[in-house]
Amino acid sequence: MTAKRPYFIVLEGGEGSGKSTQIKLLVEWLKNEGIDTLGVRDPGGPKGAEEIRQLLLTGATDRWDKITEVLMYCAARRELLARHIQPALASGQWVVSDRFTDSTYAYQGYGHGVPLHLLKQLSEVVVADAVPDLVLVLDIDPKLGLERALTGKNRATHEIRFESMTLDFHQRLRQGYKELTAASPDTHVMLNADQTVEELHKAITDVVRERLLSCSERKSA
Amino acid sequence: MTAKRPYFIVLEGGEGSGKSTQIKLLVEWLKNEGIDTLGVRDPGGPKGAEEIRQLLLTGATDRWDKITEVLMYCAARRELLARHIQPALASGQWVVSDRFTDSTYAYQGYGHGVPLHLLKQLSEVVVADAVPDLVLVLDIDPKLGLERALTGKNRATHEIRFESMTLDFHQRLRQGYKELTAASPDTHVMLNADQTVEELHKAITDVVRERLLSCSERKSA
Repeated sequence: MTAKRPYFIVLEGGEGSGKSTQIKLLVEWLKNEGIDTLGVRDPGGPKGAEEIRQLLLTGATDRWDKITEVLMYCAARRELLARHIQPALASGQWVVSDRFTDSTYAYQGYGHGVPLHLLKQLSEVVVADAVPDLVLVLDIDPKLGLERALTGKNRATHEIRFESMTLDFHQRLRQGYKELTAASPDTHVMLNADQTVEELHKAITDVVRERLLSCSERKSA
Repeated sequence: MTAKRPYFIVLEGGEGSGKSTQIKLLVEWLKNEGIDTLGVRDPGGPKGAEEIRQLLLTGATDRWDKITEVLMYCAARRELLARHIQPALASGQWVVSDRFTDSTYAYQGYGHGVPLHLLKQLSEVVVADAVPDLVLVLDIDPKLGLERALTGKNRATHEIRFESMTLDFHQRLRQGYKELTAASPDTHVMLNADQTVEELHKAITDVVRERLLSCSERKSA
């Protein structure tokens, strides 16, 4: 099955929403559907973006001024976009990203109180017209999500800055994701992440199939 | 001699304009005038900003996407502003900075061709209303400046990314500084840097005296 053009899909969500697992499964599923797909994570990817990621995700919670932090996420995102995402899409690959611009709105905007109009101003510079075709927001009660994240075995112990913030913070960012989803119904879909891995995977692939692989979009293979 | 409020002074200029030397002399001169002064350099200062500086000033010329590079300079600038410059001004100290926002306009904008309206959009987020009171632009013919910079003995050899760019690049950034100065006559003054250290120092202190320490601005000690 081949879509008429490559798509850019983003998975978003708070801590412990099962994003990483679902991304692996989604990339695998797309490949099984015959779609050449690149999985990336933001921040991360190119060498420079990984170096910025290291600076961002280690050290004390108040290590960076809040606007500085936003600018560094934007820098890492730009590097990932320019060096990995855009070349992949240009070559015909689909891209599935673990987080993108909405994480900045949710964490730094709704979570830390950086004014949303400033974040919008920055995003226009960073992303320009490279907006995702589909954003899947995995929604979970922060109490449950944090419990999952803190006991997860495949979590690097030095990357726990965000998990260690207050429950109140995580509730604000959940609310942020709800508002972001409501504001962009053409691209955003919120899914209940309090289900089994298999159930959530099916919910995700159902949306991808319906939104991006429908008959009108498909070329026959 | 005490001014009625602390001032924020920036020295700008291309490679080999003698900026570093002049900043040391200016800070010393202000202290001798009884003015408590903090000297800083952008990018640099707080630990986080120095870490970003390291990423920026080492490695190949094309190491970063051009927009990424701008965002990292902005991140380092924000950190310097929030952690060193603003607290110093709030405590009554004057601040003299080796480079600030205009370096981004000159190098990334005029030099590398990043659209100026994007840089303006970013600067509004980063600097907000913390604009310098006085910007002294040290102007020198790039041929002469580069010769000076490359033979200077106190230059770390790993920080030569910008010096190694083409002459054409340095001519564009000189033109940029000229336009920036012409556009902001209230704050910007361009000085000929092709003079002796002593002559240029006198020209600088004459401007500071006239613009910031004039009778109307001065309280009697």
